[in-house]
Amino acid sequence: MKVITSVNNSQVKAWTKLNTKKGRLKQGKYLLDGWHLVKEAIRTNASIETIMVDPNFKHMQEITVPEGTDMIQITDNVVKHLSDTKHPQGIFAVVRIEMQQDVQPENATGAWLFMDNVQDPGNIGTMVRTADAAGFTGIVFGNGTTDIYNSKIVRSMQGSQFHLKMVSAPLDPWIDAFKEQKKPVFGTELNPKARPYNEVGKHSDFALIMGNEGNGMQKDLLSKTSLNLYIPIVGKAESLNVAVAAGILMFQLKN
Amino acid sequence: MKVITSVNNSQVKAWTKLNTKKGRLKQGKYLLDGWHLVKEAIRTNASIETIMVDPNFKHMQEITVPEGTDMIQITDNVVKHLSDTKHPQGIFAVVRIEMQQDVQPENATGAWLFMDNVQDPGNIGTMVRTADAAGFTGIVFGNGTTDIYNSKIVRSMQGSQFHLKMVSAPLDPWIDAFKEQKKPVFGTELNPKARPYNEVGKHSDFALIMGNEGNGMQKDLLSKTSLNLYIPIVGKAESLNVAVAAGILMFQLKN
Repeated sequence: MKVITSVNNSQVKAWTKLNTKKGRLKQGKYLLDGWHLVKEAIRTNASIETIMVDPNFKHMQEITVPEGTDMIQITDNVVKHLSDTKHPQGIFAVVRIEMQQDVQPENATGAWLFMDNVQDPGNIGTMVRTADAAGFTGIVFGNGTTDIYNSKIVRSMQGSQFHLKMVSAPLDPWIDAFKEQKKPVFGTELNPKARPYNEVGKHSDFALIMGNEGNGMQKDLLSKTSLNLYIPIVGKAESLNVAVAAGILMFQLKN
Repeated sequence: MKVITSVNNSQVKAWTKLNTKKGRLKQGKYLLDGWHLVKEAIRTNASIETIMVDPNFKHMQEITVPEGTDMIQITDNVVKHLSDTKHPQGIFAVVRIEMQQDVQPENATGAWLFMDNVQDPGNIGTMVRTADAAGFTGIVFGNGTTDIYNSKIVRSMQGSQFHLKMVSAPLDPWIDAFKEQKKPVFGTELNPKARPYNEVGKHSDFALIMGNEGNGMQKDLLSKTSLNLYIPIVGKAESLNVAVAAGILMFQLKN
């Protein structure tokens, strides 16, 4: 196995750049940090280019290296250089970003989550994980949504990106296509005049749109949906966290 | 108005210590950072000791200083020294920690959230905010739950601590008292043999217990509840984020 001991090694430099948006876009790859994520990538046949591992990594015997994947040994200093966690486990993988270009809105089935300018990495990752748990088919990241392979999002997705169809595209054509096929597109707004979320039944094929943390959904998208939903606030809080709201809605709406 | 311009001033030193658990425990106070929180503390008659404000703070005219509260002018360098956010707004308040010692489990009414060793500040704060939105009466922070007035929790509670009864106490006597009064105590576990959460109806007086992010609820507490609930996972995610799960359960169970 190839061994890399210096943080000045050119491969290490290239991997380190995957901690930046620019680096991820340029190389078309992102970084997994930790055994849970690497294991899930292997199990789901994700497109793994390289696995980097500290020789003292404690699950070394359990790693099954997929065909076509390089395995490289890295030393403790390289591990610390690559990780942005306090206690890295000593295993990483470089994964190719494969947004589903083949998924067109016209042939999408099942339940879909559309993100309209959601900003916080923890919220985005948690929503992906929740969509997976709720049995959703895929996610469309609208134009304003943050670069989705930064380390915080990857950490909070907990591998759910490998279970869902992940599409980065403008939301308008997706909304149009769903409505054309008579599949409901539910918008969300903090507006007591919208429809209470628990009055619209359960559905198999539909889309749910969640908006920006501070500003909610864009006005022009709100006017394009089939129906806009509202979660009634009973107490004195002004609003719900967007990932919590998405969880309540996804579990309520999904058949 | 008194003006403080130096970070070496003894009051500034005391305030800075409120950014540590030790300092909060010793002084029995915590810090609010930002207009939304300070405004909500004023509106709800929280026990505010001091308001500190930059003379350039843009909502200066809207501040109504409660009787018995000191208002002190601080300069930009002091603002930056006190805040742990990138873009502080220039207003802070020192608030006395007043856990409701008078609330005993025997006379608690309504819906209560019990936290058993929840660790992540963002999760704890989001759960407090969601409990408020769902119309819960109060929260009991069990012994293992993190110090609840650290800056991250305070930020994500968004002022909901002023709307709820906040109790720090061992959970056992609370569970016992609720059961004695025939109020259901719902535990939660990641166990398909537990009762699906949507099969137990809606309730006015009850308790919901949420457990630790990695390990769930303590075993001995699970065995003391009226019933343990489970949110069926349909997709391939292993679990839900605890704050999302709490949101789904609170909105499902609360009458």
